[in-house]
Amino acid sequence: MQYQPIQSEANARFKRWKKLADSGRAVKKEGATLAEGVHLAQTALERSVPINAVILRSKGINAEAESLLTGLQRGSAPFFVLDSTLYDAISPVEHGAGLMLEVRLPVLNRPQSLDEDVLYLDGVQDPGNIGTLIRTAVASGVTNIVASAGCANCWSAKALRAGMGAHFAAAIYENVSPEEVVGFCRGRRLAADARGGSDLYATAGWEKGPTVWMMGSEGQGLSDAALSVAEQRLYIPIQADCESLNVSAAAAVCLFEQRRRRRER
Amino acid sequence: MQYQPIQSEANARFKRWKKLADSGRAVKKEGATLAEGVHLAQTALERSVPINAVILRSKGINAEAESLLTGLQRGSAPFFVLDSTLYDAISPVEHGAGLMLEVRLPVLNRPQSLDEDVLYLDGVQDPGNIGTLIRTAVASGVTNIVASAGCANCWSAKALRAGMGAHFAAAIYENVSPEEVVGFCRGRRLAADARGGSDLYATAGWEKGPTVWMMGSEGQGLSDAALSVAEQRLYIPIQADCESLNVSAAAAVCLFEQRRRRRER
Repeated sequence: MQYQPIQSEANARFKRWKKLADSGRAVKKEGATLAEGVHLAQTALERSVPINAVILRSKGINAEAESLLTGLQRGSAPFFVLDSTLYDAISPVEHGAGLMLEVRLPVLNRPQSLDEDVLYLDGVQDPGNIGTLIRTAVASGVTNIVASAGCANCWSAKALRAGMGAHFAAAIYENVSPEEVVGFCRGRRLAADARGGSDLYATAGWEKGPTVWMMGSEGQGLSDAALSVAEQRLYIPIQADCESLNVSAAAAVCLFEQRRRRRER
Repeated sequence: MQYQPIQSEANARFKRWKKLADSGRAVKKEGATLAEGVHLAQTALERSVPINAVILRSKGINAEAESLLTGLQRGSAPFFVLDSTLYDAISPVEHGAGLMLEVRLPVLNRPQSLDEDVLYLDGVQDPGNIGTLIRTAVASGVTNIVASAGCANCWSAKALRAGMGAHFAAAIYENVSPEEVVGFCRGRRLAADARGGSDLYATAGWEKGPTVWMMGSEGQGLSDAALSVAEQRLYIPIQADCESLNVSAAAAVCLFEQRRRRRER
């Protein structure tokens, strides 16, 4: 097994990784992203995610990461040892494991329509929130993620890292407008809206059949376009005189209330 | 009203703010922190939080922030206009509102014991998670936050920003070990533990009386010390073959299940 050292930021591969690290657009264009950390690497191996390159930090790869190298060496991806400074410049977290993969994005054939549960993200901006939302959805049993054009890229290195492997268990459809959701997603469209509607807990029946939970952006909540296609508006009854919930927390509450109700039946 | 311009990073006030921005230890030592954004400033005004200084960005203060200036001018805090580059160097978010307050931390008299609901944080590292956890707890009606020494500072600029004002509605006790929790918190100690225990939804009665929900660190979950003082271990039944939830999402699920049950009674 050869380890190819990279020590200069002028190196073409490094420049490519830097682009992938910094830009959701580059991730989309290249059809590849960076997966940092032991857990993501483990999941990628388990799920046979195509690996383009294995990237090691010249100093400070942790013991857990070391233990994965044998498994990674069985594949055909080339290995690179990146100068620590260069590694840190492309790592989505401050104190990474020292092991990063360049992985190929899955090619997803978009079906005519989705007759299953969906989490719809409308203008969610923060990559960390995007990743956490995908992780929470998958944990709740909802594996279809549909995102509006206004969302940050679902596959950015930061979103992937926050998703902790859930991306690889999900089907993610990006750039879907609220109007398109109507034809594409067959489930009942439920708007999580802090500004009104019915009490999530006091309202019966919304969990029946497939649902499309619609979650809005960090600052503004759901857009008018999204609200106008919702069939039902539900709010989480939070403490009076209190700010709304973070979008990831709100999604956790709604999706697990759905899960709780379905398990009871 | 005087606006004092600051253009050099050698300025003593700027250096102080930079320390507050970068170090939880400095926040603790100085008894002050930075509150960026319109919403935090609004909450600080409403709740009469002591303001040491009003800090404006020389370029790009947004319209919403402008509208708060009148209210802030009624106070006695001096105003500073910080060069944009300097402002961005101390802002906890990338595209801030251009309005930041230096606020004094509340002085909290620690009572003998707490006979109320508590959220206990054990080694939570990420300031964003800390803030979101406090926000979620307050929204669920739990206003006592107790944190272990291993946690990141609850009042760092980043944690405060993620808390979106919830800090000012909470009583936050830091540096409390799991052993101390036993004497200090009178409620039933519930461990949120992905590794075992009883099903959160299938288990009756845990929501009665005050509770102490214990949440562990991002990577490791609850420490042995915390688990050993727990009276009950509860897990969230997530989808099989799936990674655990993010700590903020897990807390949202547990605290709102508590809220749901209590509202039903």
